[in-house]
Amino acid sequence: MLQTSKLMLVVMGFVVLTCGSNAVGGQDPLPSWSAGQAKQAIVDFVGNVTKAGSPAFVPEAARIATFDNDGTLWAEQPMYFQMVFALDRVKALAPKHPEWKDKEPMASLLRGDLKRALAGGEKAIAEIVMVTHAGMSTVEFEQIVRDWIATAKHPKTGRLYTDMIYRPMLELLAYLRANGFKTFIVSGGGIEFMRPWAEKVYGIPPEQVIGSSIKTRFEMRDGTPVLMRLPELNFIDDGPGKPVGIQMHVGRRPLAAFGNSDGDLQMLQWTAAGSGARFCLYVHHTDAEREWAYDRASSTGRLDKGLAEAKAKGWTVVDMKSDWKRVFVFEK
Amino acid sequence: MLQTSKLMLVVMGFVVLTCGSNAVGGQDPLPSWSAGQAKQAIVDFVGNVTKAGSPAFVPEAARIATFDNDGTLWAEQPMYFQMVFALDRVKALAPKHPEWKDKEPMASLLRGDLKRALAGGEKAIAEIVMVTHAGMSTVEFEQIVRDWIATAKHPKTGRLYTDMIYRPMLELLAYLRANGFKTFIVSGGGIEFMRPWAEKVYGIPPEQVIGSSIKTRFEMRDGTPVLMRLPELNFIDDGPGKPVGIQMHVGRRPLAAFGNSDGDLQMLQWTAAGSGARFCLYVHHTDAEREWAYDRASSTGRLDKGLAEAKAKGWTVVDMKSDWKRVFVFEK
Repeated sequence: MLQTSKLMLVVMGFVVLTCGSNAVGGQDPLPSWSAGQAKQAIVDFVGNVTKAGSPAFVPEAARIATFDNDGTLWAEQPMYFQMVFALDRVKALAPKHPEWKDKEPMASLLRGDLKRALAGGEKAIAEIVMVTHAGMSTVEFEQIVRDWIATAKHPKTGRLYTDMIYRPMLELLAYLRANGFKTFIVSGGGIEFMRPWAEKVYGIPPEQVIGSSIKTRFEMRDGTPVLMRLPELNFIDDGPGKPVGIQMHVGRRPLAAFGNSDGDLQMLQWTAAGSGARFCLYVHHTDAEREWAYDRASSTGRLDKGLAEAKAKGWTVVDMKSDWKRVFVFEK
Repeated sequence: MLQTSKLMLVVMGFVVLTCGSNAVGGQDPLPSWSAGQAKQAIVDFVGNVTKAGSPAFVPEAARIATFDNDGTLWAEQPMYFQMVFALDRVKALAPKHPEWKDKEPMASLLRGDLKRALAGGEKAIAEIVMVTHAGMSTVEFEQIVRDWIATAKHPKTGRLYTDMIYRPMLELLAYLRANGFKTFIVSGGGIEFMRPWAEKVYGIPPEQVIGSSIKTRFEMRDGTPVLMRLPELNFIDDGPGKPVGIQMHVGRRPLAAFGNSDGDLQMLQWTAAGSGARFCLYVHHTDAEREWAYDRASSTGRLDKGLAEAKAKGWTVVDMKSDWKRVFVFEK
């Protein structure tokens, strides 16, 4: 009986361990990352904050990791994927809106002249967003997003947008979670545009998705409660809005933050300013062949001030070309 | 070897089960609840949605339970505890604000004439809230709340406010979590007023606390990033705001919702309107001896329409006097 009890303890120990950790001894948890400074910095940081007795040890509850989405978890070229969604929705809705033929920016858009449609700047974009993202219930909008994401294809690769996700970042998300981190998306993109697929694709549940939003209103529709999406801005989760969004949704400062553009800079600053060990990482798009190469001069995902600050502060910068063995999840 | 493998499987099954559940066979998980309809309804519902193969089974990820705070998890008489906090803060700040002596509602408040101070209605309350809740960083405000909650005493019982918590509800929170539920607070109270103590007291981490809020702004103060609390309303998480707040923070509809007033009605309606099994519960304050007895005529925590709808819809109504063996956590 002693023998059996001992065996049981061993087995229980093993099983209890695997309840909280997917890390299996000996296997590289980050196989798509080349050996190098970036990978080493990640592994060192996680080792430090999770090692019991280490001066840098952080209890699980405080292991918050926040990730930008566009350009950090999935691609963002030649334009933000949510903008493609909005343009597709304008085309789908056009038959019900004959008046759009004579109204900018819709008129140019429907003629296929995207450049002219967007020449109206933020006002034009806001109008496109509102007509495509508001005027329906939250349940209806979720279904619209589900239908689009299941079928729409990227113009360059011909892949589903959910295939345009970076495999190294998926491994990183899983590695952090296996080490007791709670992973959040903190994106300038729409919160309700990401939630319908983020759990399946990233393993991030809706309650850990933070993003920009329009207002909603509780209404009774034929005796059934609905949340109607209103054409009114609620919150922009970008730049200085990211720490605000993190405080609103998470209520604690991240232990680690991951971004790729100047729109993530304040999130990284806010994270770095916390006490004890903190980790900040920028993905630098340097691979024109497998992905895209852009930084200071790009209108989408501009990385200028952030790159300078990363160098000055010693944050980790991923050189996509050399640090990632594979880029997208569809690569063998 | 076969014998051992079989044993290991059995043991692993046992251990895996206990990873997700604190329920220990034979022990009553709700000992402060009297046997009766309310307790039975809770246990039946949890059994139904967690039993594999049951037609009502719900996967863990969707087991969202939302709880009102004032009057549902802790008491709310003779006035909302956060209002006491605000009044205490006015007194603490008064020496730095000599001008308050001649300015309502502060003047009456500082003379101890609460009734006259609040005679100005919502405008007076908003002014008291803003001068006591804004003008400092989020980190500073958190410390102010921590200091107050550690020392302030309830005027009737002389107990700490964190002792004015209902033991049956603590048991219910733990019971739900042991059965794979994620528990959220959804309160009309201030989100940043609850977060500093909700984890320790309720086991609910900051990222699962939803409440009313004022706006914050990211700023650099001597090179250090801060989030400044602004005297500007951001969101009221009450009544029709509760489903809106739930959608914003959780992104899915609750499986179960718990409240005590008409301010929770829309949350319960929104929950009940979901597909499959749902659970809605009202705590009815019926115990004038151990707590307070109030409903339709109360200005704090009025329960009128909600009580009617609960009866019409067959929601569970807790009769505090008969359903709870003990009320507060400080009772033996």
